[in-house]
Amino acid sequence: MVKTLYWRQSQYAYKEQIMSTIGFIGLGQMGSPMAANLINGGHTLKVFDISEDAIQALVSQGAVAAASPADAASDVEFIVTMLPNGALVRNIIFGENGITSTMSKEALLIDMSTIHPFETDALVKEMADKGFSMMEAPVGRTSDHAIKGELLILAGGSKEQIAKAQPLFDCMGSETVDAGGAGKGIRVKIINNYMSIALNALSAEAITLAEAIGLDFDTAMAVMSGTPAGKGHFTTTWPGKVLSGDLSPAFMVDLAHKDLGIALDLANQVNVPMPCGAASREVYSITRAAGRGRQDWSAVLEQLRVTSGLEPKIK
Amino acid sequence: MVKTLYWRQSQYAYKEQIMSTIGFIGLGQMGSPMAANLINGGHTLKVFDISEDAIQALVSQGAVAAASPADAASDVEFIVTMLPNGALVRNIIFGENGITSTMSKEALLIDMSTIHPFETDALVKEMADKGFSMMEAPVGRTSDHAIKGELLILAGGSKEQIAKAQPLFDCMGSETVDAGGAGKGIRVKIINNYMSIALNALSAEAITLAEAIGLDFDTAMAVMSGTPAGKGHFTTTWPGKVLSGDLSPAFMVDLAHKDLGIALDLANQVNVPMPCGAASREVYSITRAAGRGRQDWSAVLEQLRVTSGLEPKIK
Amino acid sequence: MVKTLYWRQSQYAYKEQIMSTIGFIGLGQMGSPMAANLINGGHTLKVFDISEDAIQALVSQGAVAAASPADAASDVEFIVTMLPNGALVRNIIFGENGITSTMSKEALLIDMSTIHPFETDALVKEMADKGFSMMEAPVGRTSDHAIKGELLILAGGSKEQIAKAQPLFDCMGSETVDAGGAGKGIRVKIINNYMSIALNALSAEAITLAEAIGLDFDTAMAVMSGTPAGKGHFTTTWPGKVLSGDLSPAFMVDLAHKDLGIALDLANQVNVPMPCGAASREVYSITRAAGRGRQDWSAVLEQLRVTSGLEPKIK
Amino acid sequence: MVKTLYWRQSQYAYKEQIMSTIGFIGLGQMGSPMAANLINGGHTLKVFDISEDAIQALVSQGAVAAASPADAASDVEFIVTMLPNGALVRNIIFGENGITSTMSKEALLIDMSTIHPFETDALVKEMADKGFSMMEAPVGRTSDHAIKGELLILAGGSKEQIAKAQPLFDCMGSETVDAGGAGKGIRVKIINNYMSIALNALSAEAITLAEAIGLDFDTAMAVMSGTPAGKGHFTTTWPGKVLSGDLSPAFMVDLAHKDLGIALDLANQVNVPMPCGAASREVYSITRAAGRGRQDWSAVLEQLRVTSGLEPKIK
Repeated sequence: MVKTLYWRQSQYAYKEQIMSTIGFIGLGQMGSPMAANLINGGHTLKVFDISEDAIQALVSQGAVAAASPADAASDVEFIVTMLPNGALVRNIIFGENGITSTMSKEALLIDMSTIHPFETDALVKEMADKGFSMMEAPVGRTSDHAIKGELLILAGGSKEQIAKAQPLFDCMGSETVDAGGAGKGIRVKIINNYMSIALNALSAEAITLAEAIGLDFDTAMAVMSGTPAGKGHFTTTWPGKVLSGDLSPAFMVDLAHKDLGIALDLANQVNVPMPCGAASREVYSITRAAGRGRQDWSAVLEQLRVTSGLEPKIK
Repeated sequence: MVKTLYWRQSQYAYKEQIMSTIGFIGLGQMGSPMAANLINGGHTLKVFDISEDAIQALVSQGAVAAASPADAASDVEFIVTMLPNGALVRNIIFGENGITSTMSKEALLIDMSTIHPFETDALVKEMADKGFSMMEAPVGRTSDHAIKGELLILAGGSKEQIAKAQPLFDCMGSETVDAGGAGKGIRVKIINNYMSIALNALSAEAITLAEAIGLDFDTAMAVMSGTPAGKGHFTTTWPGKVLSGDLSPAFMVDLAHKDLGIALDLANQVNVPMPCGAASREVYSITRAAGRGRQDWSAVLEQLRVTSGLEPKIK
Repeated sequence: MVKTLYWRQSQYAYKEQIMSTIGFIGLGQMGSPMAANLINGGHTLKVFDISEDAIQALVSQGAVAAASPADAASDVEFIVTMLPNGALVRNIIFGENGITSTMSKEALLIDMSTIHPFETDALVKEMADKGFSMMEAPVGRTSDHAIKGELLILAGGSKEQIAKAQPLFDCMGSETVDAGGAGKGIRVKIINNYMSIALNALSAEAITLAEAIGLDFDTAMAVMSGTPAGKGHFTTTWPGKVLSGDLSPAFMVDLAHKDLGIALDLANQVNVPMPCGAASREVYSITRAAGRGRQDWSAVLEQLRVTSGLEPKIK
Repeated sequence: MVKTLYWRQSQYAYKEQIMSTIGFIGLGQMGSPMAANLINGGHTLKVFDISEDAIQALVSQGAVAAASPADAASDVEFIVTMLPNGALVRNIIFGENGITSTMSKEALLIDMSTIHPFETDALVKEMADKGFSMMEAPVGRTSDHAIKGELLILAGGSKEQIAKAQPLFDCMGSETVDAGGAGKGIRVKIINNYMSIALNALSAEAITLAEAIGLDFDTAMAVMSGTPAGKGHFTTTWPGKVLSGDLSPAFMVDLAHKDLGIALDLANQVNVPMPCGAASREVYSITRAAGRGRQDWSAVLEQLRVTSGLEPKIK
């Protein structure tokens, strides 16, 4: 390890910095700029990808080309993997010429891929069983943020692992969330993506219906920007109600269910398919069938918890 | 009409005010405080409801009791209706002892109920055919806002109608949106409610899954508050992409689809039903089948428009 | 009433027959051949429709043209309505120049339209309150069956009403089901249509997926014709299990859920949207969350009953 | 190979029979009776399972206990696998002490498990690349049928492989379908299971709604047994319409969509959640948006094909 000064791309800040050696595997749309930002941060990189072009692009920025995952993982303090799926991560770690064939027991493997959390759990356990150190740190935000070094880092690992990896995270991201332990980083990533990806489809349903019934986008926005439709429920309707254990109605489940029925009828009359909305009405129906029709609409959360077999939180 | 000074409940402002006579029909959880705020605003109210108790509560605040909708509608400048469904609104207007049996051709009927937009359209047309003036102005926000006079007024009508009704709206709400003409107020109300009500169910799915896989609410919030999961897509991911006609990928449909698949598999393994999310995956599947797998995830909007039979906007 | 011999179109049978006078309102794709079969059956018809062409077509077959619903309903023993929606049925009955303005208290009104059961309930009650006799008798099968007089008649009314109407039903249909009382005919119609219409979409999902993964229709049929996939569950898997109160597994919920997950993953990989199947997986998820994973897959019925707030039938 | 006479359990028939040596791996609810029927058929079995009890039960019926998959696969003409998931099948074949460590190049591996078709494809290919012969033959019907030797065998492989395996299939099943080549057996199994499993949930929705609105099961059955609701569409409504390229309406998409809307409204009024039906309505909405509202309801199949990116079949 060599202490050095480095230039933090997005902050123009100088500070004392521990320069590390890093093997970086997976140089796609996200991985390439992340690796570049580690180089910009003063770290020494050995890079591997199945695309020779991707490797050369990083070499031109100062990286050393590795011939295999094993090569990338030899004689480094960190190995970062950024790969498209869990089967590939497993193969890169344990397969022929894989990371564990050369990785030091002192090194830390950081998987930044978005894979199935149960795959992460299995990998972390198998690595630990073999005496290797592994954590996961999937990222939030987009490829633009990857380029700017402004990713959101969702760190899953021990406090020590996260502290050790922090200088790397600081090169690639502008914010690190300690998700609460091994496997929690990938879990919160999946939850976040679930919410934003499904919300994208739901939003498309609302805006398509708006257009089909003659509203313009600006009018719809003018209204929704001031309501939970645009601001979400997490910080608006829920905190004073279901999250506080209070289900007295500010807006009743029965009325929400009624309005949803109007919207779906309207959509079906003008031929706008709204599968998400149609599914959500049945969730309200479940909630009503459970006797919650006159509770606050946030009771949908409590009911879904119960339907999922979780212990009720509210009497 | 009498000019007067009035006290605007939530703003402590004095201004010149035109005091009007108003028939108010429908004194439920929303209607009662709305009527009260009109009284507080200096207006003269005749009130009617099927509940004699509801009428008396308003009488104690200064209203005059009406014996029927017809009675409430006679000799007033405005009639406001705030009723639970469209069949009732129709009956109160055109039925026996209904509003139109006494309403002046100079008066303005303002329906503030949330009903089916096609019912509103039919009522407005039938009223116009008979020479009566009607507009709709459904409200956003909750009964708490109704009490505080801080509702969001979604005005559907001519510029003249809205201007005429504005002093009333100012008593009941803190913001008026001119939705763009007759029938547009109820349309934007339905869109807004659709979005917020379905979103409530979707949010419940995400948070229930988070709990079931061992995340706490605060961790999930820490992450989602900084992403489209918490901030929505209308002002984050969409403006620079699908709303600008650019579908080059910041986050590809194929990857969004993959991550959604992981989340749904996870949910199904831990028995958290996610009907909204399951439905949304099929919307992504439709988008991929249309050849948009490598487009930006906001392409889901464009695809849903096309699937709905609307003209494509983006080449 | 005149006794006569009549020719039963599809059976070439002669029998003694009571010839009746009938007002028939609604001469669409279904109503026209139904009316024609009543004429063929020897009955005297007065017919009304908004289409003059439709009336004339029936007149050429021996009907008398009526100038209004009231005209059609005057001086007849039966009035049959076959109309596209409930609002129209209501208007034809109670509106201006409607049926009840001329209908005899001795006559029987038979509504054969498919409308909302709650609309039927309301109409039957209002008719009874005014001293009129009304029953409903929606029909099953297709317009081809209507032409051949082979409809399925789903009779909702008293035993007396059904017996009185039976000669008419025998002209229009080949089978009459006594559904168990007023309102039950339309209810069983809606259930039957629900099942067949949703099944049509589900079947399309299965066959589209089959094609997309390289199976031909005949192979899929060869297999499904011998399993509940083709034969349904009502007479195969359910009678010995959930319908007998036995939930010991012939095929476990957990395994059904697993196989459904495989099918959905497969479909999502080849871009076949399967919204019905995706929704059904969440129903299995609800069933598993309720602790029924190792019960027979028919337990889905018992669980859905419980989720709907019905009393459990099986301990 | 030894020629022998054997007693065919369910047919009481004697015929000349080729007795084979078989390694059987996976002795669960299905595997155990399948293995027993092979023994009853005169074959010599070596059996392996992770449950020693399961092995001993078969040993008591005449099987030889194997110590590992490799042991079971050595010196036999056939190896049959009946395992719960694809990862296990892969491990049993290629893992430590796996089948391929001892299996003869002359032997035939028959995987009868229900796994993901893409896993089957990969296994078959890898086996062929190593010079081994493998086919798949998942089974239809229930554990009762497994006991009686009356399973439905869905054979995926070459004509030669199927012919070779036929004597084994005849012991375990009463019907063999040649699905059309390698990988087609598991594909048709997944399609069949998809259809029957999703149909089970849909059927539960219909019958729960029937109960909730006061119909009894027998009345619903009396009606549905005579319509596509009970008989399915494959052999009733589709052959003369969409499968013949004729979309002229026997029952219009628009009317089907309308009736579905009534059923869903009814269900939502009585709190019966119907997620499958709700999803199916949106499929009809897609079909209508594509301009097919006045086509036959079987057009849903053609539309779903087009939405899935398949070539239209009907002009």
